[in-house]
Amino acid sequence: MKLLELGEFGLIDLINSIIYKAKDSQQDSWKRLLVGIGDDAAAWQGNNYIQLATTDSLVQNIHFDLDSATWEELGWKALAVNISDIAAMGGIPQYALLSLAVPGEIEVSNISKFCNSLACLAAKFGIAIVGGNLTAASDVVITITVLGYSKSKSLLRRSTAALGDQIAVTGTLGLSAAGLEMLRERISLDVETTDTLRRGHLHPIPKVREGQILVKQGVRTAIDISDGLIADLDHICEASKVGARVKIEQVPVHPLVKANFPNYRELALYGGEDYELLFTANKAVIEQVKQAVNCPVTVIGDIVEETAPNRVVLFDGRGNIIPYKKGGWEHFRDKSSKVEIT
Amino acid sequence: MKLLELGEFGLIDLINSIIYKAKDSQQDSWKRLLVGIGDDAAAWQGNNYIQLATTDSLVQNIHFDLDSATWEELGWKALAVNISDIAAMGGIPQYALLSLAVPGEIEVSNISKFCNSLACLAAKFGIAIVGGNLTAASDVVITITVLGYSKSKSLLRRSTAALGDQIAVTGTLGLSAAGLEMLRERISLDVETTDTLRRGHLHPIPKVREGQILVKQGVRTAIDISDGLIADLDHICEASKVGARVKIEQVPVHPLVKANFPNYRELALYGGEDYELLFTANKAVIEQVKQAVNCPVTVIGDIVEETAPNRVVLFDGRGNIIPYKKGGWEHFRDKSSKVEIT
Repeated sequence: MKLLELGEFGLIDLINSIIYKAKDSQQDSWKRLLVGIGDDAAAWQGNNYIQLATTDSLVQNIHFDLDSATWEELGWKALAVNISDIAAMGGIPQYALLSLAVPGEIEVSNISKFCNSLACLAAKFGIAIVGGNLTAASDVVITITVLGYSKSKSLLRRSTAALGDQIAVTGTLGLSAAGLEMLRERISLDVETTDTLRRGHLHPIPKVREGQILVKQGVRTAIDISDGLIADLDHICEASKVGARVKIEQVPVHPLVKANFPNYRELALYGGEDYELLFTANKAVIEQVKQAVNCPVTVIGDIVEETAPNRVVLFDGRGNIIPYKKGGWEHFRDKSSKVEIT
Repeated sequence: MKLLELGEFGLIDLINSIIYKAKDSQQDSWKRLLVGIGDDAAAWQGNNYIQLATTDSLVQNIHFDLDSATWEELGWKALAVNISDIAAMGGIPQYALLSLAVPGEIEVSNISKFCNSLACLAAKFGIAIVGGNLTAASDVVITITVLGYSKSKSLLRRSTAALGDQIAVTGTLGLSAAGLEMLRERISLDVETTDTLRRGHLHPIPKVREGQILVKQGVRTAIDISDGLIADLDHICEASKVGARVKIEQVPVHPLVKANFPNYRELALYGGEDYELLFTANKAVIEQVKQAVNCPVTVIGDIVEETAPNRVVLFDGRGNIIPYKKGGWEHFRDKSSKVEIT
């Protein structure tokens, strides 16, 4: 069987089963492990704090192409998506390692731009870039590992959603996917809109502060929106063994997306890469979060018992169920296939 | 200017300068940092122990091709080279993250073989594989990050070689390069030799135990041999601002390499990827190390004042200087170009 037949979830299950079969519970590393494969980041008990680690890659012609993304944007985004995974655990990013595979024909000035942008984002979050690895390759592959910690004993997990929880999201959605569509289809919009969409796709701001506020206010369940709202909500449902009802008219779409893209709803629901936080908690906790954070927090649905065939069920304004293709998109089948196993 | 014109060291210097320009000394992450870019692994002060981190990639058609390497061998080697970097700091590996970029056309059974081998090596060293990332790509790119720690306050550094130190190496050299040559040139040898050479190249055993013995016996300077004996010794010399004299007849060549490859000397001096430890210390310490480890330890030269144009000077049995091309090989100019910045 080929990977593209097995698909994303089958592959993750396979890797998971192999890794855990070899697990040695006597080893200190395994004893200390709190969160392994299957959440936004791995977590283990350090001596004072919980330690966190995540890794994520950007691959040329899969996640980006050099015609539409600048090297500054690549440097920013490659680090941002990793910081976002730490944010989605309620953690604080601390160290980063860069593994860069590039063709020898690349202009050195581009690498400078890339590193400057990376260093700029790192400085913004107090992250020290402490090492990495350079290698020649035919395509550009950027892999970054970010290590962080959590002062709180509680983490934001995928597996802790409870029946009756409200489902909420920070910020607005669809900007990144709309930006990608604009770049790919060469859609012409006014300068300011173009810039905002482009930044939405290539210059995301990870929600580190928001993640910590969530933990502090008592939220225990969150994920960052990388695969898409519905796909990421499905990750929570799968890990928590629950179902979710989403009222799609309540999903906050970025106004520029709504104004310029007739398919704005699809972009917000399935687009992904907005790096907002999707979380669940009881009503009182969500009210507290709304007061504590500086960005919009919108309740879009609630957690219910697990349903089939779809764990996530969408409703329109009249309360009618809206059918959709399960899973958002299928990894290793779609060209832009990215699967996180942390 | 293109990368292939700038070359390895220029590129590392460039990245280093950009990262450190953005350094914020007020940040806890930077305050705790003990070893940044430029050694085998990064190190920072944890709450009890020193924390270590390293990352390294294997890229298809650069570091391996799927005609000559099996998926089991790739899984083993990709993790082994990272463990070796922790070993070369005198550390103990603890956690690993796997970032795997693969075409969707790959057989799932190959990924199983890869993961089984990875998990087997991880178990051998008590490492928990805690997460990672999967992505589609046109070529296979395997990036692994290993995190470890050091109970000792002393690490094995590149920058601590002192005048008068002896230079020593564990084990024997040349097996990996000879294995690569055998595979590339399709050299036919007897079954046992073929197997040993192949394992030397694709199934290296990282010297974790040896690294810890070195630290315990008072060694402070070491590197693992990945780029090649002379290139890696040059890394020590550059970091320590010293020179080195090597008596090439004392360099321990693996007997099967000596018996089957007329160019055995070049393979041992420049071949790389043996993942033995190259270290320097005073004579008394090296004598103690010889008693304490279970593998051969051979003195091959000594540390002297920095010399030009080559920091490392080679001597034959009669004491004559042997000229050689500076730097072993030039990264981003050679096809098999791999540059470590940790």
